Amino acid sequence: MPQALESTALDTLFTAARSHNGWTAEPVSDATLRQLYDLVKMGPTSANCSPARFVFLRTPEARQKLAPALSKGNLEKTLSAPVTVIVAWDREFYEQLPRLFPHGDARSWFTGSPAVAHETAFRNGSLQAGYLILAARALGLDSGPLSGFDKDKVDAAFFAGTTWSTNLLVNLGHGDPSKVFGRLPRLAFDEACQLA
Amino acid sequence: MPQALESTALDTLFTAARSHNGWTAEPVSDATLRQLYDLVKMGPTSANCSPARFVFLRTPEARQKLAPALSKGNLEKTLSAPVTVIVAWDREFYEQLPRLFPHGDARSWFTGSPAVAHETAFRNGSLQAGYLILAARALGLDSGPLSGFDKDKVDAAFFAGTTWSTNLLVNLGHGDPSKVFGRLPRLAFDEACQLA
Repeated sequence: MPQALESTALDTLFTAARSHNGWTAEPVSDATLRQLYDLVKMGPTSANCSPARFVFLRTPEARQKLAPALSKGNLEKTLSAPVTVIVAWDREFYEQLPRLFPHGDARSWFTGSPAVAHETAFRNGSLQAGYLILAARALGLDSGPLSGFDKDKVDAAFFAGTTWSTNLLVNLGHGDPSKVFGRLPRLAFDEACQLA
Repeated sequence: MPQALESTALDTLFTAARSHNGWTAEPVSDATLRQLYDLVKMGPTSANCSPARFVFLRTPEARQKLAPALSKGNLEKTLSAPVTVIVAWDREFYEQLPRLFPHGDARSWFTGSPAVAHETAFRNGSLQAGYLILAARALGLDSGPLSGFDKDKVDAAFFAGTTWSTNLLVNLGHGDPSKVFGRLPRLAFDEACQLA
């Protein structure tokens, strides 16, 4: 039986967590990034298709390669983050399905239909990005997801000649609370939800 | 400072959690669904755009309306779940931006560009679906997400004449452990990740 989380854990994941724009000097170790992936990979995807791919940028060189793709407002907070994750997807994720979903010929659902393959990769790769943001918080990290950047430039700089495509960026580290913006409003239940 | 979660909480969210195919008779109250939305809504979205919309199907009538859209393999487990959530997005999510993101004229980023609006809604609506799956687990619920269904039929049955579009379905309840499938393999770190 799964155990519901305590309220402090709900705070860490959802209620008190914030997207961060500034970072302390505390680093994020490669061991933590491996621990992070070991959580993210367990999150459910359709037919276990697991299309997301993750490039963890830690070095100044990798960061400089990313810089030309960033919008002005996202530049400084990204260059100063201990880690920036390029969350991508593999356009040929279905080549892994004979191993990831051995129950049937799931590969053939996608090889003949580029539109279905794209939609599946984008939907499930984005679900996995959601798992990444919450798994980082679960490990005591702060995150700053962003999509204000030039995806074609990131693809050209990092993924030329590969089957990977950029989805979004997620800065990771230990946030500087003094640089957090005021909390923005959310839609009320009755605006976003229906009971039927 | 955020507190890292204990290992039992990581189990509940990621490591021990499973997608469920069968359900106990234990119901899910409307109060729990409201608590669920109050967590999900706090998850980050690009410019706070919050495009996801949720229809919680609890009644037999609502379920029967969904049935014709389900694939054979997903029919019984969906009709027997205490709650099925249609996770949708609002194609005109940007109409809420003057309130949700008062810092600038974010509405205008989307009104002139249907392709950018669609991509933003699909990406962020899917992120929010990831938050929903993990928030349900955090509250001690089990989930069974699925995309094996006819989206056009769901749109026609539930969203005709509205600006909402179906993304995926998520069954919610208390899972019957005897109906869980064997755990499928995941990609190793070096297959899905790069350190740069």
